Amino acid sequence: MSDLDAVLAHLDADLEPALERLFALLRIPSISTDPAYDAECRRAAEALVADLSAIGFDATARETPGHPIVVAHDRSAQGPSALFYGHYDVQPVDPIELWEADPFAPSIETLPDGRKVIRARGAADDKGQVMTFVEACRAWKAVHGRLPIPVSILIEGEEESGGPSLPPFMAANKDELRADIGLVCDTGMWNPETPAITTMLRGLCGEEFVVTAADRDLHSGGYGSAAANPNHIVAAILSDLHDAEGRVTIPGFYEGVRELPETLKAQWDRLGFDASAFLGAVGLSYPAGEADRSALEQIWSRPTCEVNGMGGGYQGAGFKTVIPSKASAKVSFRLVFDQDPDRIRAAFRQFVRERVPADCKVEFLDHGSGRAVSFDITNPAYEKARRALSEEWGTEAAFIGAGGSIPVNHEFKHVLGMDVILAGFGNDDDRIHSPNEKYDLESFRKGARAWARILHALAR
Amino acid sequence: MSDLDAVLAHLDADLEPALERLFALLRIPSISTDPAYDAECRRAAEALVADLSAIGFDATARETPGHPIVVAHDRSAQGPSALFYGHYDVQPVDPIELWEADPFAPSIETLPDGRKVIRARGAADDKGQVMTFVEACRAWKAVHGRLPIPVSILIEGEEESGGPSLPPFMAANKDELRADIGLVCDTGMWNPETPAITTMLRGLCGEEFVVTAADRDLHSGGYGSAAANPNHIVAAILSDLHDAEGRVTIPGFYEGVRELPETLKAQWDRLGFDASAFLGAVGLSYPAGEADRSALEQIWSRPTCEVNGMGGGYQGAGFKTVIPSKASAKVSFRLVFDQDPDRIRAAFRQFVRERVPADCKVEFLDHGSGRAVSFDITNPAYEKARRALSEEWGTEAAFIGAGGSIPVNHEFKHVLGMDVILAGFGNDDDRIHSPNEKYDLESFRKGARAWARILHALAR
Repeated sequence: MSDLDAVLAHLDADLEPALERLFALLRIPSISTDPAYDAECRRAAEALVADLSAIGFDATARETPGHPIVVAHDRSAQGPSALFYGHYDVQPVDPIELWEADPFAPSIETLPDGRKVIRARGAADDKGQVMTFVEACRAWKAVHGRLPIPVSILIEGEEESGGPSLPPFMAANKDELRADIGLVCDTGMWNPETPAITTMLRGLCGEEFVVTAADRDLHSGGYGSAAANPNHIVAAILSDLHDAEGRVTIPGFYEGVRELPETLKAQWDRLGFDASAFLGAVGLSYPAGEADRSALEQIWSRPTCEVNGMGGGYQGAGFKTVIPSKASAKVSFRLVFDQDPDRIRAAFRQFVRERVPADCKVEFLDHGSGRAVSFDITNPAYEKARRALSEEWGTEAAFIGAGGSIPVNHEFKHVLGMDVILAGFGNDDDRIHSPNEKYDLESFRKGARAWARILHALAR
Repeated sequence: MSDLDAVLAHLDADLEPALERLFALLRIPSISTDPAYDAECRRAAEALVADLSAIGFDATARETPGHPIVVAHDRSAQGPSALFYGHYDVQPVDPIELWEADPFAPSIETLPDGRKVIRARGAADDKGQVMTFVEACRAWKAVHGRLPIPVSILIEGEEESGGPSLPPFMAANKDELRADIGLVCDTGMWNPETPAITTMLRGLCGEEFVVTAADRDLHSGGYGSAAANPNHIVAAILSDLHDAEGRVTIPGFYEGVRELPETLKAQWDRLGFDASAFLGAVGLSYPAGEADRSALEQIWSRPTCEVNGMGGGYQGAGFKTVIPSKASAKVSFRLVFDQDPDRIRAAFRQFVRERVPADCKVEFLDHGSGRAVSFDITNPAYEKARRALSEEWGTEAAFIGAGGSIPVNHEFKHVLGMDVILAGFGNDDDRIHSPNEKYDLESFRKGARAWARILHALAR
């Protein structure tokens, strides 16, 4: 039995205990955006430190102004080094009433099509993915007492909240963290049979604004129409953000947006993306974005502006004839190519201010940002990883784009000067950020085996 | 001492116990729109029945499909009869965090300008106003053992929720309820020194709609721009409701709207309404409604469309990159003259449907309606009541309009065939429907004295 085969066999034999370890992590409600869960975030970080220490990493939870960052090293091996990145924090769980079970009581379920899945908040995003890598390391250590290459691990707790702690931490510790290649497990497969490496990621810019009209809530009978209604003001601003063709109307928004290189566009076309099936799976039929762009471009290579939350006035049961004092909205922009989040934030704020009446006020909250990023896939590590993935699944792995943002990749590239292999095992139906999030058991099992293969391949 | 003077003297001497009785009613959180408070609404009705029975009325709480309706009669006197109307239900209290004290723990406060006020939800709308009439009746009975005229009292519990129970109840019991004149205490003074009788009231039509796009919440990175976002759809609909001149754009909305009669317009002009002071008192500067209408027209004689609530997506602390499955809005229309609420509801629904994409759904909720109403002030009872009010305040009382809706007036006029004297003692700064609602102690004291005078005057 080869070195690698022994590790793969160990992973298969160790699946039940590995699931127990993942479940323990999933039981911690580490919701980073809500200060009520600060202690739970710390608890998740400490659990990871304990687990990584137990398998021989030099692991610590490092303090930041926000949630702790887990850093662990095992550099006893020779050869090219790798820095793995993941996050232990999870999205909020509301609307909680749509969950079929406690989001933090993980269980294995069998879907109608026979697939077994791990059901819990964070199962796919990102605790399940993080643990695929940890289990691969554990298996190498258990079988051979060593890793194939020097490995460092960085697991942060503010990925879901756009928290500001990681970039300065990476800058301050770049000598400690720098490696020959980055490994990130926070993305998806092309489809359940086809693994993928994501080579383009959109950036993100999150903004919130609050419009205040009168200094108190008013009776709409006594003041209606004479008094400015912040619901009307916010709705008009949100409505103005897109034109009839689905384009974003903020001046300068498309600065830095480039057309997709022809070769990549041709490769994407060959993927045979089925927009009807993609939308049909969530009950929709028609791409809603820019009228002259394919759905795949809309989600991978075009910038977007989405209203993630809006609210004002009475939203409870029944009716209240109120003109609220305040109304607000949370808006995020997905950025591509060279779009500058700071310029877009400034342009958005100007756009909003121009639409707020002179006797009303507007306040803004910065919910973080990250630039888009794309990697140089001529680095031979990409081909090694692609081959390892292909061998595990028995299907040629694809290079793909992704609509989601993983801001850390920008820091990897521009602060640490590293390319990153984004190999994740999520599926489109994982419901990440939604009620009833799940992660396929096969993703977890093959994901750990795939990382074991990739570590082996990178040592060659 | 005249019959009347003895009653007025008794009211003054009985003020403290009268406040205790009002406070007992204010302590009951009879929020009609929220089913969680159904039992409290019933408790308020039963408290009123007990109190009215104690002063000699034949009082009962009458069952309806919704909240009970209190009906009480004391017809032992001769002369023209009156039917008094008020409501025991109150508005919700959210945002509760803006209240400086428990909304249902009434207290007397002294304002910086020296005015004493009763602070509680319902103090002005409408429990404090209802009790001015009850205390006037109590004093007449206490001093003379009789009322000056036959009196019936009708106190409902669905005024703040647009509930459907009252109109069929009035129709089914019209012989029992019909009187020579209606008396309603649910309106305001012209200003703190000038009492008023309201002769025009706007109607109301309340609607809610819910747009559903995808069948689950989605990640805006994975689906953004390709998947329809119900926040965008709702915002665009709400934004479309008004044009740049502040006019409502729903086809047919202005059908039945008439210009104000010149004589009434001239009287309103003489009131010297100060729009800057009116808006300035709530921190605003510019009338926001129809550009070619005065602020007084905007709130008294023009129809309006106000978004009272809207919501969709994540509204908690922090940020969540979600595309929600649903977004919704609550919209109310204030109606004038002959506008038909049913036609406006239908036109609004059509307006909304036309703006919902084909692969999304929209549902509507009817939150009740009432037509606008105006009364024939040539009925001599109006002049008697005006004189009584003028004598109490030492200032000539005004005939005014009102922006708010009291749908029952339409039933008074069209079901019972009665004119109604709307004499209320609220002030513009009462914050009805808002946090920290109050009712001036002078409004309560003089209000009760004024009703004692009006009952006396109507007997002449």
